[in-house]
Amino acid sequence: MKVREGGSDSGRLYAYYQLHGTAEQVEVIARALTVEETIEFPAELVTDPEINENVIGRVEGIEAIGEGCHDVAISYSVEVTGWELPQLINVLFGNCSMWPGVRLVDVSVPDSLLQRFSGPRFGTAGIRELLGADSRPLLATAIKPMGTSAEVFAEMVFECAAGGVDIIKDDHGLANQPYAPFSERVARCGDAVRAANDRYGTRALYMPCVNAPVDELDARVDLALESGAGGLLVLPGIGGYDVIRYLASRSPGCVPIMAHPSMLGALVLDESEGIAPGLVFGSLPRLAGADLSVFPHSGGRFSFSREDCSSIAEHCRAGLGSLSETIPAPGGGMTLEHVPEVAAFYGNDVAILVGGDLHRGPLRKSAESFRDRLERIA
Amino acid sequence: MKVREGGSDSGRLYAYYQLHGTAEQVEVIARALTVEETIEFPAELVTDPEINENVIGRVEGIEAIGEGCHDVAISYSVEVTGWELPQLINVLFGNCSMWPGVRLVDVSVPDSLLQRFSGPRFGTAGIRELLGADSRPLLATAIKPMGTSAEVFAEMVFECAAGGVDIIKDDHGLANQPYAPFSERVARCGDAVRAANDRYGTRALYMPCVNAPVDELDARVDLALESGAGGLLVLPGIGGYDVIRYLASRSPGCVPIMAHPSMLGALVLDESEGIAPGLVFGSLPRLAGADLSVFPHSGGRFSFSREDCSSIAEHCRAGLGSLSETIPAPGGGMTLEHVPEVAAFYGNDVAILVGGDLHRGPLRKSAESFRDRLERIA
Repeated sequence: MKVREGGSDSGRLYAYYQLHGTAEQVEVIARALTVEETIEFPAELVTDPEINENVIGRVEGIEAIGEGCHDVAISYSVEVTGWELPQLINVLFGNCSMWPGVRLVDVSVPDSLLQRFSGPRFGTAGIRELLGADSRPLLATAIKPMGTSAEVFAEMVFECAAGGVDIIKDDHGLANQPYAPFSERVARCGDAVRAANDRYGTRALYMPCVNAPVDELDARVDLALESGAGGLLVLPGIGGYDVIRYLASRSPGCVPIMAHPSMLGALVLDESEGIAPGLVFGSLPRLAGADLSVFPHSGGRFSFSREDCSSIAEHCRAGLGSLSETIPAPGGGMTLEHVPEVAAFYGNDVAILVGGDLHRGPLRKSAESFRDRLERIA
Repeated sequence: MKVREGGSDSGRLYAYYQLHGTAEQVEVIARALTVEETIEFPAELVTDPEINENVIGRVEGIEAIGEGCHDVAISYSVEVTGWELPQLINVLFGNCSMWPGVRLVDVSVPDSLLQRFSGPRFGTAGIRELLGADSRPLLATAIKPMGTSAEVFAEMVFECAAGGVDIIKDDHGLANQPYAPFSERVARCGDAVRAANDRYGTRALYMPCVNAPVDELDARVDLALESGAGGLLVLPGIGGYDVIRYLASRSPGCVPIMAHPSMLGALVLDESEGIAPGLVFGSLPRLAGADLSVFPHSGGRFSFSREDCSSIAEHCRAGLGSLSETIPAPGGGMTLEHVPEVAAFYGNDVAILVGGDLHRGPLRKSAESFRDRLERIA
């Protein structure tokens, strides 16, 4: 099924599943799904007709698409979501995550629900404005390796910014380890990015990783913002998608949010179960409010296909009410040689995430080479 | 590999993976894993010997266990976790969740890290004391179906408590929908459970579902506790495991925490990837501090095997430093007829979660039948 444009006309939430089995089996599973994801109760025992009519989901269509595989559209009343992201996710794929042969492949969110979400606060246009980058692909990197001191990380941030990297994030494994404690790291790196921007007229953003314990999240974000962080790296696979929404909406100090795919691979890898990559790395982070979404580009050291990647980009950008776009940030083993192919594949509205390869020479020089390559694409 | 007892002697964090491929491939993948889950950086570019020695993980053993499948032990320095649950999870299965053919099957947490976690605050003994249930299996249920008013839910709570149900939780899909808004629901259900306990001398606990937006979590928990909630139902698959830890450690008002498996199925279903059920429904919720862990019993409407279920129970109970046990709470289509088999399978330290079947007759009478059946087992 194709990506839907905006909310469904009916005002209902549509979920598109792929179910495995014979036509007869799939019809039974589809009907069971409408119950499992809502009332989770024997339908024959429901006495209130309102519940049968408006709380249990509805099978809207079943279509064979191949050997023992069917596309199934199920619609849910918006009320079952309570207009909240955690319960929306629970309705779409809560209990049925435990059913074999059920994959959530797409979602169409009606306007009444979309209006409750602000989506990316910056989006493509906002991020480009912050960075002063009109049309070229963006360059992102991560400070690494873990084990490095905060002082040395700050030097890396300075060199990357000086070399023209747009977004310099913490490696996603940087938490609050003794090697480079969070508070020292963000203070030093915040200073470094400011110093480089001041000296070279660049506008690089430093984005620390806030994969924090629940009760430390606010304190770390406060520290980060006070230190001059220009964005936040969030791991929805570990802390939940709602952390993105919370941080994107948190005031004061609205900064760009970048989502990282840690732990989310288990959702997408097996094509007969889980959730399709377009939702996991596109629609869900976007709905939550991620301005950038990191995922592995095909051909790197991960296993995503080109179809997966183009579906992610499509879900980051396709019409979704009035929500801004999320910028796809493909990574996972990017080298200078990948740049033209990646830019051609995603178009210019992309943040190319280069990790270790930037360190193969002096950092500033490597960054300049990448930036130069990107400037020539624009 | 067998479940380990307590922390590993070496003081390092051990992760046991199953990797798929030939012996040569697996050796390469194992070594790559030690880098991917820590420094995520080309190992040949690391200049600091301390990072090579103590930050990158170590392959501790590889053993062929069948057709193209190998058990692999990898150890990590405890420092890489920063002694925090979100980063611990990130080290164990962050980026490698995106690698095909990699499954995390077990973990051995050293004492130095275990000591940072308080685990279940009540555990088997504490929950039995709260409930006044010396040795029999416990009876748990959920108020449902969604769409029911708070007033009617409160009547259900009263009837279930009167009939001898120990733990009456919200259905995990009850959030803050208009049918039964959270504040009204917890107020009415809190009153109802207190009224029944007062009248009948029972000690039932009502546990509302707090699958809340990040910025509403504290307010909902406060409301729940003020209303007399005797525990909290948490969905780590949606809000992250650290929410369990946070709520278990939150003061004032330390109440039992029950973990629900929503969304977590995608982690366990495909046996060549993801994470083994014993970790997902046993070790991880236990480390975080869940007193009870809900999961589908084999043979119900989900797809867990008997081996999965006994592994979960084992991980809920096996020695883990000084951490209390988590009580397994098998559910998913339990009927009165299942009770003897389930009790025989898990032993008496179990909470049998009965959902819809309790509603097949008058609620109090059904509850009494279940309770009676359980009393006869003790």
